Amino acid sequence: MVPSHLLKQQPLFRQIDERALEDILQHAHTRTLEKGAFLFYQDDPATAFYIVERGRIRLSQLSPEGQQVIVRFLTEGEAFGIVAVLSNIPYPVAADAVEETTLLGWEGETFRHLMLKYPQLALNGMQIMAQYMRETIARLREITTERVEQRIARALLRLARQMGKKTPDGILIDMTLTRKDVAEMSGTTLYTVSRTLSKWQEAGFIQSSREQICICNPHQLAQIAEDWEA
Amino acid sequence: MVPSHLLKQQPLFRQIDERALEDILQHAHTRTLEKGAFLFYQDDPATAFYIVERGRIRLSQLSPEGQQVIVRFLTEGEAFGIVAVLSNIPYPVAADAVEETTLLGWEGETFRHLMLKYPQLALNGMQIMAQYMRETIARLREITTERVEQRIARALLRLARQMGKKTPDGILIDMTLTRKDVAEMSGTTLYTVSRTLSKWQEAGFIQSSREQICICNPHQLAQIAEDWEA
Repeated sequence: MVPSHLLKQQPLFRQIDERALEDILQHAHTRTLEKGAFLFYQDDPATAFYIVERGRIRLSQLSPEGQQVIVRFLTEGEAFGIVAVLSNIPYPVAADAVEETTLLGWEGETFRHLMLKYPQLALNGMQIMAQYMRETIARLREITTERVEQRIARALLRLARQMGKKTPDGILIDMTLTRKDVAEMSGTTLYTVSRTLSKWQEAGFIQSSREQICICNPHQLAQIAEDWEA
Repeated sequence: MVPSHLLKQQPLFRQIDERALEDILQHAHTRTLEKGAFLFYQDDPATAFYIVERGRIRLSQLSPEGQQVIVRFLTEGEAFGIVAVLSNIPYPVAADAVEETTLLGWEGETFRHLMLKYPQLALNGMQIMAQYMRETIARLREITTERVEQRIARALLRLARQMGKKTPDGILIDMTLTRKDVAEMSGTTLYTVSRTLSKWQEAGFIQSSREQICICNPHQLAQIAEDWEA
C-alpha cells in the first residue's frame, strides 16, 4: 500500500476526503514490473495513469535529434501519465522499471466515472493539465521568438561580412542602416527588430545608434544565428 | 436570450440537462459592448469567459512578427475564453465588438463552483482544454522538426556551394558523403538525417545514394534553410 500521507500530497487528491480517497483507491488495479521491464513506450496510446507504490520508474524521451534522454525518476507516491490520459494524447515519454516496481493504475474510463462522482477530482485534474499547458505554451513562445531572433542575427552577420569595418568597439557595419532596413532584410517587423536590438544592446552583443550598428560580440551573434542548441 | 438549441450545441454544455443549464445561465452576467469596443486585450489576465448572445466579436492576435492578425469572428451562441480561464493563462487573443454586441459572461470563480455542482461541466471543460493542448503540442512538434530540417538543409547547401557540380539531375555534391557525415555537420543524429533525406527524396528535392547526394531542387532546399515562413 502507498502510505496515505503520500497519497494526500498528490496534487490529484488535493481536498479529497478520506472516504472518497478509499473509494478511488479501490478502483485502481495493481501492476508489478520486473527490473528493466517497460510499462509503455513513447507515443503509445495513453490508456491509464499510475502511482508508484514501491520501486523506481524511469521516464525517458527521444529528443528531436533522436537521442534517448532521461526525463526523470519517480519514486514511491509519485504519479505519472495523468495529463496524457486526461488530454487524450499519446504518452509523451517511455516508462520502465529501474528495479522491481509495483504500481497502482487507473484506466481512463474508470477515472472519468470517478471524476463524475467526485468533481473535486476533475478540478484537480484540470489544474494539473493547466500547469502542463502553461509550460507547453511558454516553450512554444520561446521557440517562436528564437526563430525571429535567429533571422535578425543572420541578417546582421551577412552585412558584417559584406561591409564590416574593424573598430575598437567591434565590427561596424559600414553603411546607413535603419531598423526598418533590418526588418525588411529579416522578414520581420520594425517592432520586433527594435525590441531585439535593444535586448542585444543591453547584453553587450551590439551597439546601435539611429542609423548605425556595430557588432561587439560576433561570436554570440553567430551562436544565435546558427542555433545549435535546437 | 441565446436560443437554447445553440447553447446545447456548445461543447461546454454537452450532456447537461435542461434544469442544470438554466441554473448555469442564471450565474452568467450580461455585458453589452458598443461597436469597436474592446472586451479584453491580448495578455490580459483571463477572469471570465463569454458566449455571444447577439452581435459579432472579432478575436485578433499579435503575430510573433508583431502584425495584428484576425484569428476569427464569433457569432450568436459561440463561446470564447474558456481555455484561458480554466488553464489560468492570459487571454492569448484580443476581443472587440464588430457591431453592438451582447455577451453572457461567467467569472472563473463562479464557474469553478458550477463545475463542482455539475461535474459533467468539468469533464466538458477538460475536453475543450485537451483539444487545445493537442493543437499546441502538434505545433510545438512541427516547429522543433522544422528546426532540425533547417540545419540539415543548410549543411547540404554549404557543401553544394563549396563543391557542387552541375549535372542533368541538379547540383551533385562532388565528394563521398555518408549520412553520418551529414549528421555530424548538422549536429543531429543518423536517424533524423535518414528520415529527412528520405522525405526530401520522395518530394523530389534531392537524389541520394549510399555515399552521394544530388540536389535536384536547390530553391526548395534554400527555402527550408532560410525558413521565411516562421
